[in-house]
Amino acid sequence: MQQLNVDLGDRSYPIIIGAGLLDRADCFTPYIAGKQVCIVTDDTVAPLYLERLRTTLTGLQVESVVLPTGEAFKNWLTLQQIFDALLSARHDRRTTLIALGGGVIGDMTGFAAACYQRGVNFIQVPTTLLSQVDSSVGGKTGINHPAGKNMLGAFYQPQAVVIDTDSLTTLPRREVSAGLAEIIKYGLIRDLDFLAWLEQRMPALLELDAQAVTEAISRSCRIKAAVVAEDEREGGVRAILNLGHTFGHAIETHQGYGQWLHGEAVGAGMAMALQMSARQQWITAADARRGIQLIAAAGLPTAPPAAMQPDDFIRLMAVDKKVLDGQLRLVLLQQLGHAVVTADYDHAALDATLGQANSQ
Amino acid sequence: MQQLNVDLGDRSYPIIIGAGLLDRADCFTPYIAGKQVCIVTDDTVAPLYLERLRTTLTGLQVESVVLPTGEAFKNWLTLQQIFDALLSARHDRRTTLIALGGGVIGDMTGFAAACYQRGVNFIQVPTTLLSQVDSSVGGKTGINHPAGKNMLGAFYQPQAVVIDTDSLTTLPRREVSAGLAEIIKYGLIRDLDFLAWLEQRMPALLELDAQAVTEAISRSCRIKAAVVAEDEREGGVRAILNLGHTFGHAIETHQGYGQWLHGEAVGAGMAMALQMSARQQWITAADARRGIQLIAAAGLPTAPPAAMQPDDFIRLMAVDKKVLDGQLRLVLLQQLGHAVVTADYDHAALDATLGQANSQ
Repeated sequence: MQQLNVDLGDRSYPIIIGAGLLDRADCFTPYIAGKQVCIVTDDTVAPLYLERLRTTLTGLQVESVVLPTGEAFKNWLTLQQIFDALLSARHDRRTTLIALGGGVIGDMTGFAAACYQRGVNFIQVPTTLLSQVDSSVGGKTGINHPAGKNMLGAFYQPQAVVIDTDSLTTLPRREVSAGLAEIIKYGLIRDLDFLAWLEQRMPALLELDAQAVTEAISRSCRIKAAVVAEDEREGGVRAILNLGHTFGHAIETHQGYGQWLHGEAVGAGMAMALQMSARQQWITAADARRGIQLIAAAGLPTAPPAAMQPDDFIRLMAVDKKVLDGQLRLVLLQQLGHAVVTADYDHAALDATLGQANSQ
Repeated sequence: MQQLNVDLGDRSYPIIIGAGLLDRADCFTPYIAGKQVCIVTDDTVAPLYLERLRTTLTGLQVESVVLPTGEAFKNWLTLQQIFDALLSARHDRRTTLIALGGGVIGDMTGFAAACYQRGVNFIQVPTTLLSQVDSSVGGKTGINHPAGKNMLGAFYQPQAVVIDTDSLTTLPRREVSAGLAEIIKYGLIRDLDFLAWLEQRMPALLELDAQAVTEAISRSCRIKAAVVAEDEREGGVRAILNLGHTFGHAIETHQGYGQWLHGEAVGAGMAMALQMSARQQWITAADARRGIQLIAAAGLPTAPPAAMQPDDFIRLMAVDKKVLDGQLRLVLLQQLGHAVVTADYDHAALDATLGQANSQ
């Protein structure tokens, strides 16, 4: 069992990583203040892990809410099911919500915790690789709006993140690849050594080799925790964690939530960011190829859907949360292993990237 | 023009009080960071003040959203209208929302600001007496759930509160009384001198005497700001600001939102809290009568609706946000001018208060 810390003053919290943690009460009870707990999960994860976690929490008043699975349900209507359950079981301000599932469950449960009675505690128990290395850490919570992904939400930190690496054994192959997209991201934006390690260990990661996976999760969480500690509310550097996400969100919105996995869209989006960074001559064409090869090696798409036109991107990216005063800022690579957020890019390079994407 | 300060570290902000402030750009522009502004108001206030405020903000990109009037619309569906307007006008993270209206508009606009893109700035411009002295200050925002008032929301502070006392001239008499309920509350919970002043100046306040009203607003805001600075997130003392509100919320929920004004329900609720405090022998019967007389002098009800049974109260109060570990805490008066929050009260006194309420 490893423990990292997200350093945010009085909102600091641990990330606990290990095998079999779902069965260990000592990973949960220190972070539960009252007697009431509400586990929020989805109909994919519930049959696998809900009863195990309930058993671990014996002695507390445990409710559970099982939501429909998928990004398509990451909306207010689904969120209401959490509020309805809390209110009908009369959960008070001292209740603790537990998010048991992937990124959608984590985002929705966190936002529900942020809103319920103006804020109650919650614990992240991410069960997908993507949520373990990314969305469960850092306090971004929220839901989608038909006009854009994660448009409504809160910065709201959990009491703890409990990562049971055993839960990956039930994860579909496609979701493993989606998680690897965010792992690759950390190498690209901040850690060239990690990128090289990933190139070497990609076969082991795809086979869910326990040692490799634990190492990848731990290194990813460490980078994420450091960036979040520098800039909790994304006033500046935190936005580099969105490498590939502006393009990726446009893809997800265009396809309809739930068609492409988030990690798949981010994979294609990072490939676009690499190409555009090369067009700007910030990185070499060889650097871009190297990054794109790693994305492909993880089993991820490296181009957006053929049906998407440049205009679709322009329209959908205009509502990105990184737009300020009408200017779209993009996360690009100044060199491999070093990302920047900037509105100071060559618009011809953007047009070419969007055009080329379409011609693939 | 007077200026008070709500002292909350890096979330501190001014309360600006004066006549004719709606026309003064210098009361607004220092608190607007970007170029985009969205005024949120309702269909009662819009015809009176919207164009004036738009004119004051000339030079900015100003959107406006006009919501239906009243507590019955303080829900997610109405909130969506704000998000839809922001997204279709492509407002970014640097936008500023302005709440132009009463408490419902302030609560909803503040919650919309808390959620939009995980948090944007907002300014409170309360136009009712109640919102000027209470709901606009302190950062409580939210919406109702069918099972309880203000069950969903956020602690989210504005950049400024701008109180134009001229806006009271268009306020219906019934709403003036409702505002006086919260003003009386400050005297009861924390300031015996202010209570005596109110007894003397009540006729002037009911006639909206400018000097008396400004004094009452300023003294009320000062008390509220001090309590909020002590306990922003209602971990303790802030709950005394809810004197009469637990009973009052039960009345509002029972009657259906919008039947009794919030201030009217609080008036009746404070009368019940006074009676119960006297039953506990914490205050004298004469003290209770004195408080109740002042509530009546303000034109407020001093008893709940005749149709409400003790069981209705018990059921509706069980979801109060002050319930902890199944115990309902109440705000009661230990002496006139000094309130406490306590679960340590005589349940027979509560039953008697609820029973007597019904027999009136």
